Parts: sequence; C-alpha cells; structure tokens
Amino acid sequence: MQILRFESDDNKIYTGCDFDNGKASVIEGDIYSDFFITEKQKPVKTFLPPISPAVIFCIGLNYKLHAKETGMALPKYPVVFMKNISSAAGHLEDVRIPASCVKVPEVDYEAELAVVIKKKTRNVSPEKALDHVLGYTCANDISARRWQKHGGGGQWIKGKSFDTFCPLGPWLVIADELDAPDHLDIECVLNGNTMQKSNTSDMIFSVGQIISYLSESTTLVPGTLILTGTPSGVGFTRKPPVYLAPGDVLETKIEKIGVLKNQISLDRE
Amino acid sequence: MQILRFESDDNKIYTGCDFDNGKASVIEGDIYSDFFITEKQKPVKTFLPPISPAVIFCIGLNYKLHAKETGMALPKYPVVFMKNISSAAGHLEDVRIPASCVKVPEVDYEAELAVVIKKKTRNVSPEKALDHVLGYTCANDISARRWQKHGGGGQWIKGKSFDTFCPLGPWLVIADELDAPDHLDIECVLNGNTMQKSNTSDMIFSVGQIISYLSESTTLVPGTLILTGTPSGVGFTRKPPVYLAPGDVLETKIEKIGVLKNQISLDRE
Repeated sequence: MQILRFESDDNKIYTGCDFDNGKASVIEGDIYSDFFITEKQKPVKTFLPPISPAVIFCIGLNYKLHAKETGMALPKYPVVFMKNISSAAGHLEDVRIPASCVKVPEVDYEAELAVVIKKKTRNVSPEKALDHVLGYTCANDISARRWQKHGGGGQWIKGKSFDTFCPLGPWLVIADELDAPDHLDIECVLNGNTMQKSNTSDMIFSVGQIISYLSESTTLVPGTLILTGTPSGVGFTRKPPVYLAPGDVLETKIEKIGVLKNQISLDRE
Repeated sequence: MQILRFESDDNKIYTGCDFDNGKASVIEGDIYSDFFITEKQKPVKTFLPPISPAVIFCIGLNYKLHAKETGMALPKYPVVFMKNISSAAGHLEDVRIPASCVKVPEVDYEAELAVVIKKKTRNVSPEKALDHVLGYTCANDISARRWQKHGGGGQWIKGKSFDTFCPLGPWLVIADELDAPDHLDIECVLNGNTMQKSNTSDMIFSVGQIISYLSESTTLVPGTLILTGTPSGVGFTRKPPVYLAPGDVLETKIEKIGVLKNQISLDRE
C-alpha cells in the first residue's frame, strides 16, 4: 500500500492511499497506530510530503563509490547528520535555490532511500530494526556545498537545511510490501540524463544497521525520517561540476517505490 | 513570568507558572499563541523540560575563550549542529551515561543559554530577531567526546543526541522580562566547584545574530530550541581532563533565569 498526503480541491489536507487517475482514497486515523481506509475518494490537487517528519536524520558516505568520489575514507561507523524538519517538500513541489546560492552555483542533488520509523525505538538490534519501519519513500538530500563546507563551520547542517532541501515522495510504500530495502535499484535523473545509478545493496551500512546504530541509547520517535545515504555521481565531484539551476527537472527513482519529481526554481521570498 | 511544565501528584502533565513553595499555577491554552493563567494551583511532583522542543539547533565555539581552549580557529560564521529532540530532560532529572561511554570516560558538560522560538521565523534580521523569542532557559549541551569526534564520522550529532543529553530548565523566563539576553552571567558548577564562569556578552555571535543566521532561507517553527554555545572551562580541555561520572551533581546557572540541577547516573535500559 502507498500512503500519501495531499491537498484536495477543497483546500483541505488529507492522508490517502491507492492513488489512481488523479484521485486517492481517504485514510482516517493515525498512520503510526490505528487507521482505516474510507470509501471516500478525493482529487489530489497538490502532493505534500507523505509524512510531516518529527526529526530528519541522514547518513553520509554510505555507498562505497560515493565515499571514493568525495576523496574521503570509508567510514568505520555511520556518518550521522540532520536536516531541519522544515526542509521537507512534496512530489512536484519546487526545490527553491536560496538567494545566497545564486552568484556561485553550489546546490547539488543526492538521491536517497528514506525510511520512516513507526514506533518508539531505542536500542534495537539490526535484525529486529525493520519491524520498527512504517514505510519507505524516495528522498533527495539537496545540499548547498559551500554552506555545507564553510558556512556551518565544518558541520554540514546549515547547507542541508534550507526550506525545500528535502523533497520526499511521491508516497510511502508500507514496509510489509517492501521486505528487502537493501536490494532496490536507485537512480537520479537530471533533465533526462542519468546522474546516479546504483542499488541499495551497495550500501556500506544496511537499513537495519543504520536504525540500530541511531537508536543506541537514543529514542527515535514515530515519524523519524532517516535518509540512508547517496550513491556516486553527485554534481560537485564531476568534471566539470554540475549544479542545479532554475528550470532543471530532478527525478529520484527507486525500484518498487516510484519516481519523485521536482523542478528547480529560485527562492523569491 | 516563568513558564514550567510538570507532572503533578495526579500523574497528569501541566503547563504552569509562578512556582512557589512546591506548587505552580496552571496555565491553559497554547504558550505559542493564546494562553491564560487559571486560579488552579497544583503541586509540582516532577519537573519536565519547560517545552517539548520541535527542533534543537546548537551553536558551537561561540565564546572566544572556549574556541581557544579547543584549539580551533575562531569561526567566521556560526558553527551549526543539532541534537535529537529526545535528548531533552527536565530540572532534577538524571543525565544518564550510555553503556558505551562507561569504560573510557568521555561525557562532558557545556552550560548554555537556550532560546525558544515563539512564531514561524524566516529571513529575520538580527535587529528584529528577539521579537520572535518566547523565552529563555538554562541548558546543558551534554557531549560524549569520543562519539562526537569519531562515532559520527566528524559530524557531532551522534555524540550530542543520547537521551537526557539536553537538560533544560527549571523554567522558561518569558522574553519581555529578559530584554538583554546578551548580558547575563553564566556558570557551570560540578559537585560544588565552578567549572565554567562567563557572561553571555562574551559570545562571538549574539542571540539576535544567531537567530537571523539560522533563519536564512530556513523556516524556524514555533518550539525551535536554540542552544547558543558554551564558555571556556569544559572538561575535556582540562589537565587532567574532567568527565562526568555517576553520582556527580551538575548545576547550570544563568543570571535572571535560575539554576538547572541534574544528577549524573548510569543508563541501565
């Protein structure tokens, strides 16, 4: 089952499923505990992020070839950072480039498999960790490279946390229907050209290992979103480098989940 | 006015104010928009963090002498990192040392002034930023130094995010009563010995500058908590180093706010 959040033509926000022909069945209740699918169908006017993340954790350098292309050593432990929750954006929503990133292009893409935690999780083993997952979605860990390196004093968060820098979707595929998150093709396509292409089996740390590591003496609340790292092929390591520009169309594709599509625009606020 | 959250002897959770003689007046409504003080008084059985943080941002190396003691260069921009929201703990709650930090002591204290954002904030100027503050409280950015340096691959978050690693309180002093957050004495006392003693006027980036910087193209939601950095005197830079151990009593004191007191214990879960 696919769970989505959307605004309908009555300007109200719904949780839904079974997206088909521009419509979705309305879900009532709490997707983290008890919910049911109603008979009601509503037109999907605007896709929202499939969840409002309570927390966003990210894993860096989690694909061997990507670690190599950045010139960094293979990590012994997962590299953990976070994004501000307001960075979440929906399918077909614009990823907006901040005014400070226009003069010198620096905004880059990172296609990633994202995991949503279903229940309070603490000190879970890698073997049992997947029982704590509500579902999976496509994410792109949009990154302003200069901000990431210098703007936050060596800590990456500021350059990863601008509004719309975490597009998610189009929907969440619930965990029972995707029992092998570590064997999924993943691809990032920019203006029709494949920029990243890999399989989640190339991850250094598996989804179960990541959740287990994050949960060590640390409570992960329901709605915690975890971005599990990106494959090789990001823009800043290319010769010449490729950065996102207004008008670009970015697609984040994951097997058995779908295609998250976002256009790039300028932030005018 | 001081705003606190507490559990009373009926095991219910309340927001309150006017703490006196073990009791507080009950507040009803939403502290971020409209609330009122009722006539009801309730005994305070357990202090909770004065807010449930929506997000926790932290600023590193924000006092000149502290940057010097760590051997790091003075930052040109605020060093930005985050803590998991489950790290929040209340006044008089134990700070629990994770099992992984016992063999080689590594858990350190960092007394900090913390700021709570009142309303949706984006692209605010340093001059107008303080109008977006609900209030101020004492915080301690408890840090597992080995995890901070190596466990998270150079990113600090994992070593800063263990449960109870962000004690807060005892209460929030609302902003109108504390109009000069940049001129407050701040002190950290461990087992009766003063370990850190400074004034927020020694900050490199002021509270207004920090909020403005964080809000650049980034929405800060109500309930965003910002820890504004720690003065010199932290444990790991001392000769010999000082680390927190079970039984220790840690006090975080800020002028015009109060004294946040926490005992250290072992995490047994």
